[in-house]
Amino acid sequence: MSVLIKRLTLIGVGLIGASLAQALRKRDLVGEIVGVDRRRASLDYALEQGIIDRVETHAARGVEGATLVLIATPVSTIVSMVEDCVAGLGRGVVVTDVGSVKGRIVERCEALMPEGCAFVGGHPIAGREHSGVEAALASLFDGARTILTPSSVTPRWALELVTEMWESVGATVESMEPHWHDQVLAATSHLPHLMAYNVVNTLSDLEDHLRTEVFRYAASGFRDFTRIASSDPTMWRDICLENKDAILSILGRFKSDLEKLTKRVEEEDADGLYGIFARSKDTRARILQENKILRGE
Amino acid sequence: MSVLIKRLTLIGVGLIGASLAQALRKRDLVGEIVGVDRRRASLDYALEQGIIDRVETHAARGVEGATLVLIATPVSTIVSMVEDCVAGLGRGVVVTDVGSVKGRIVERCEALMPEGCAFVGGHPIAGREHSGVEAALASLFDGARTILTPSSVTPRWALELVTEMWESVGATVESMEPHWHDQVLAATSHLPHLMAYNVVNTLSDLEDHLRTEVFRYAASGFRDFTRIASSDPTMWRDICLENKDAILSILGRFKSDLEKLTKRVEEEDADGLYGIFARSKDTRARILQENKILRGE
Ligand SMILES: NC(=O)c1ccc[n+]([C@@H]2O[C@H](COP(=O)([O-])OP(=O)(O)OC[C@H]3O[C@@H](n4cnc5c(N)ncnc54)[C@H](OP(=O)(O)O)[C@@H]3O)[C@@H](O)[C@H]2O)c1
Ligand SMILES: NC(=O)c1ccc[n+]([C@@H]2O[C@H](COP(=O)([O-])OP(=O)(O)OC[C@H]3O[C@@H](n4cnc5c(N)ncnc54)[C@H](OP(=O)(O)O)[C@@H]3O)[C@@H](O)[C@H]2O)c1
Repeated sequence: MSVLIKRLTLIGVGLIGASLAQALRKRDLVGEIVGVDRRRASLDYALEQGIIDRVETHAARGVEGATLVLIATPVSTIVSMVEDCVAGLGRGVVVTDVGSVKGRIVERCEALMPEGCAFVGGHPIAGREHSGVEAALASLFDGARTILTPSSVTPRWALELVTEMWESVGATVESMEPHWHDQVLAATSHLPHLMAYNVVNTLSDLEDHLRTEVFRYAASGFRDFTRIASSDPTMWRDICLENKDAILSILGRFKSDLEKLTKRVEEEDADGLYGIFARSKDTRARILQENKILRGE
Repeated sequence: MSVLIKRLTLIGVGLIGASLAQALRKRDLVGEIVGVDRRRASLDYALEQGIIDRVETHAARGVEGATLVLIATPVSTIVSMVEDCVAGLGRGVVVTDVGSVKGRIVERCEALMPEGCAFVGGHPIAGREHSGVEAALASLFDGARTILTPSSVTPRWALELVTEMWESVGATVESMEPHWHDQVLAATSHLPHLMAYNVVNTLSDLEDHLRTEVFRYAASGFRDFTRIASSDPTMWRDICLENKDAILSILGRFKSDLEKLTKRVEEEDADGLYGIFARSKDTRARILQENKILRGE
């Protein structure tokens, strides 16, 4: 393939940003990669590994001459990162991000774009148990999905560039309205993560003697169930702050369902309990079926 | 190995019972296997596959001449199965079960034992997404744990026979007091299962247009998280009825933790949220570590 991006500036050389840089590099899709980060250690590691070609400590200087700017810092910092770099943006530059929440971030970043530049919100559905540049993996997006969240002001050429970038590293690209993305993700990702975290915390709070046994006997179902409770605490703090409304709404529904379930247990309602479990089993099977079709399997 | 069990009577030729029968047969540890079941189709299938050697429709007749009786029917039926077979038990017969709940069942089954016979409660920590005899697997208990729940009245010879049976099919055997087993399992298994079921049900109840998207976008984390919500509804109904007290107690704790989490989201309490997630991540790592040590890894 020929070079897709002449100069990429990567702001936030962590798991997601560095993985994308590696994936593009491996395919010779990018000319030069400039890295901007908070910690010198991350930049040094990335330089050593050939993930980036040079470093800049100031965002505005880092984006000078860039074709594409990728913001891959925590959700709570994305808007201020864009603010920091606007002064250095040339004409026709595309700024994109990988944040797990989109609504307000996209609105505010779009409003910050200078004439001739464009912001395209993005969210790759991929991750690992560990974060940081050391966990970066060129194959991270192979077979993954990336959701892009264009709005009515997104120019087609900008959306096309970002789409091509993700497709070229093996991802399937889908589009969603930014606030709609946040509602969908609150249900499919944020709710399960929060419940897994909450289950683990409930176990931590048990009386010593019971907790010791519980920790010893946690079976493999428990391992699978709580895998998602080992993600980065900073990321989840930010997601809760940034997607507060959608999360509170789905938590409210979850709690009302939990009240019904509790009541059925209290009342020893055999048919009611059977109904809940049978419906859930059936729903899960349908979800996996829809997913298979979506993935073309 | 020499024959460990001269004649095994299996009451309930389903996933767990038939898997154990196959595992014992494969190792030539059992002389004859008699199957007792509700549905003729299950018995025919088991005969055809050589899982059992002959069938009996009456439990009391089925256990005549047995060395060991294995009850592998749903939790809600175990006590009545034992009642049905006591009339046919000879001297020195061991009756054991595989039910997922133990406390009251063990108490009542022990009380039913005729002079010279013994009941030993058991619970293999193994399962599959599908149940029924067709899902049986001779390797199901390889590397699994089986919890036995002897009480003060359990004779040592009976406990030794059941222990040897499980160890010979590849399981590691551990002992727990029956009611204590129910509390530990409520936390490590019942709580995660119920929360996975509840998450899936919450998604089923979303408005049509959102639900459609949610079903389509459910990512791989969702698949892992909800795997346990595809277990058998009858089994989970029975577990809720039979382990009501321990389940209500752990649900109460979970709900109070969930209230705290919700409050921190409402109040946008960044430090509080970070604390919850960091603690949970740390706890999970410790649980997995304890498990590794337990498994001798
Ligand atoms: N991990 C996932 O599962 C996943 C999936 C999809 C999207 N995302 C999104 O991807 C983005 C990055 O996540 P990640 O998993 O790649 O995390 P990460 O590995 O921790 O990387 C985060 C990067 O941002 C930098 N950073 C952290 N805090 C900062 C701050 N306050 N100011 C400036 N820079 C800061 C870090 O710098 P240092 O090197 O100095 O620490 C690091 O380079 C987030 O927006 C997240 O929501 C993550
Ligand atoms: N699956 C697991 O993950 C797992 C793990 C550990 C322990 N256990 C325990 O193992 C036991 C059996 O579970 P399983 O997974 O093997 O289930 P299964 O495959 O559905 O087998 C249940 C067996 O019991 C029979 N049965 C069902 N309802 C009955 C009734 N009302 N009266 C008489 N017989 C009845 C079934 O007969 P038909 O063939 O006629 O339907 C079948 O032979 C349960 O006590 C369960 O708690 C299960």
